[in-house]
Amino acid sequence: MSIFTPDYAESIASLGEVELIRQIGHWLGAASPPPPAGIGDDCAVLEPNTAGKTIVTTDSVSYGQHFDDSVSAVDAGAKLIKRNLSDIAAMGGTPGQAVLALLCGRDISKIWLEAFFHGVRNTCLEYEVQLVGGDVSSLAAGNFSAVLTLSGTALNPILRHTAQIGDHIFVTGTLGGSIRGKHYNFKPRLQEGLWLAQQDTCSAMMDLTDGLGKDLQALLPPASSAAIDTSKVQISRAAVALASESAQPVIKHAFCDGEDYELLFTLSQTHSVESFIAKWQEAFPDLRLSCIGQITDQQQAVFVDAYTGDPLPWTHGFEHLKDT
Amino acid sequence: MSIFTPDYAESIASLGEVELIRQIGHWLGAASPPPPAGIGDDCAVLEPNTAGKTIVTTDSVSYGQHFDDSVSAVDAGAKLIKRNLSDIAAMGGTPGQAVLALLCGRDISKIWLEAFFHGVRNTCLEYEVQLVGGDVSSLAAGNFSAVLTLSGTALNPILRHTAQIGDHIFVTGTLGGSIRGKHYNFKPRLQEGLWLAQQDTCSAMMDLTDGLGKDLQALLPPASSAAIDTSKVQISRAAVALASESAQPVIKHAFCDGEDYELLFTLSQTHSVESFIAKWQEAFPDLRLSCIGQITDQQQAVFVDAYTGDPLPWTHGFEHLKDT
Repeated sequence: MSIFTPDYAESIASLGEVELIRQIGHWLGAASPPPPAGIGDDCAVLEPNTAGKTIVTTDSVSYGQHFDDSVSAVDAGAKLIKRNLSDIAAMGGTPGQAVLALLCGRDISKIWLEAFFHGVRNTCLEYEVQLVGGDVSSLAAGNFSAVLTLSGTALNPILRHTAQIGDHIFVTGTLGGSIRGKHYNFKPRLQEGLWLAQQDTCSAMMDLTDGLGKDLQALLPPASSAAIDTSKVQISRAAVALASESAQPVIKHAFCDGEDYELLFTLSQTHSVESFIAKWQEAFPDLRLSCIGQITDQQQAVFVDAYTGDPLPWTHGFEHLKDT
Repeated sequence: MSIFTPDYAESIASLGEVELIRQIGHWLGAASPPPPAGIGDDCAVLEPNTAGKTIVTTDSVSYGQHFDDSVSAVDAGAKLIKRNLSDIAAMGGTPGQAVLALLCGRDISKIWLEAFFHGVRNTCLEYEVQLVGGDVSSLAAGNFSAVLTLSGTALNPILRHTAQIGDHIFVTGTLGGSIRGKHYNFKPRLQEGLWLAQQDTCSAMMDLTDGLGKDLQALLPPASSAAIDTSKVQISRAAVALASESAQPVIKHAFCDGEDYELLFTLSQTHSVESFIAKWQEAFPDLRLSCIGQITDQQQAVFVDAYTGDPLPWTHGFEHLKDT
């Protein structure tokens, strides 16, 4: 099933905007509450948040950038919701309500878009996200972007800039090679993020979207570097397979590929790494947690090898503005 | 100044994503509060809303759709904010915090984008909007979209579907011909919307974005039509000028052009039109208010002439999915 169609009758242009918005409401079903909370007014009216601080994130999927013809419409729709959920997870939050801006060429296929919204709906229902409003606007033919803005609640949001020198660095799961499928086929780490926020021992957190090599830099306080035990960085099977084709080191794939959607966080050095990992394994027996190093006050390089002190070169990740 | 540049050194690609986001923070200045409320975390942490209901809207501007080379970058940035403010106005709300998703080709000019953000900043400061976060992602070269999601507060949000048969229909300002400049050079009717919400006499409201002919249909309750006194529909000078070129009736331009960003609202029939207009003129002496008709239970056409009962043909407005 192709995203675009040359056949007017099969395109969303044949529906017109009013009918398209009606159809979207129908496709979303229980994921979109009735007005005034749901679709159909100038603004959505939100439920008051009484359970903590309100957090909000925005993230998009665009055809040709975040998915292509090798990804099904259902998976593309699910990816849009899950990318945003991963940001909520990274703050230790619980998802709430969302609005969706659709920017699309008139040649988008109705059947494709229905499947996209089924992915949106299923993921919203699975993670208890309510889609309360949005906007449809046009782009030139052959284009499609969808931008979701998602709010959530966090009792105690975990930020990025609050790590300190000496803190231990942790990563969930395995890294690298997401282009082989994980870039859309992933599970946002919501339960894990919430658990980490509840432990009250996590000093900073973010999700890995652009790759460990780029993202970890955002957690480092000024005048610090990360001393990394590269043997502790868990490499995905996809990264191993990809490395055999790319002739690049597997570790480079783990650092630089991006779209891992794992959690990267720090633990104050007053806590024991071993007992923290033991506690984690009790809570999440199926998701590996790795302590990959420590923040140091050395400044000769952004990342250094924890044993040799040599600079590590993998300081770049996915770059959104590069020619790809 | 062109939006795209063939010169890498002048493009945002030469900055890279991290530096671009730093620059955006700099360009926004006081319009973007420091973290954790501002740019730089996985989610923005919002101030609690204690003054009423939280409302939220999302709206975009795309190059080639909502602006072109005839619109300055500053005006394009201002338009993005004002389009969303118009939605807040239409609910009788006060604007609050926003997140901005930027989708752009790597060939966007740095100078152009800086000017765009100056338009964003100035408008945010003027209307007391705080830009608390966002996202940057890439599109193919030659593309630019920006999506803003704006929250606000409304003590008593005025909805679209709450008009009743018999209600009087009002429009602010003059209509039509927005392509001559008003489509970006307009003032969102925030004070007016807030005043209307405070009067407690306004039964339904929306802003005119796609044209009276299309938008008014959204206010009509089931099994009703609008009896319109076309002589009361105030036509803009731009619509008159445009009609002399298009060979279309000026009234058609007023109904169908779109992007008027005026308020369309209804008043319960138990209220006097004359005294309401007198009250309005006291509050807003510089903005014309017109009572253009009444909702009736006749069903022979969507709009009918209030005097002859004949159907009025201008039931379409700007259509987002059409070839334009």
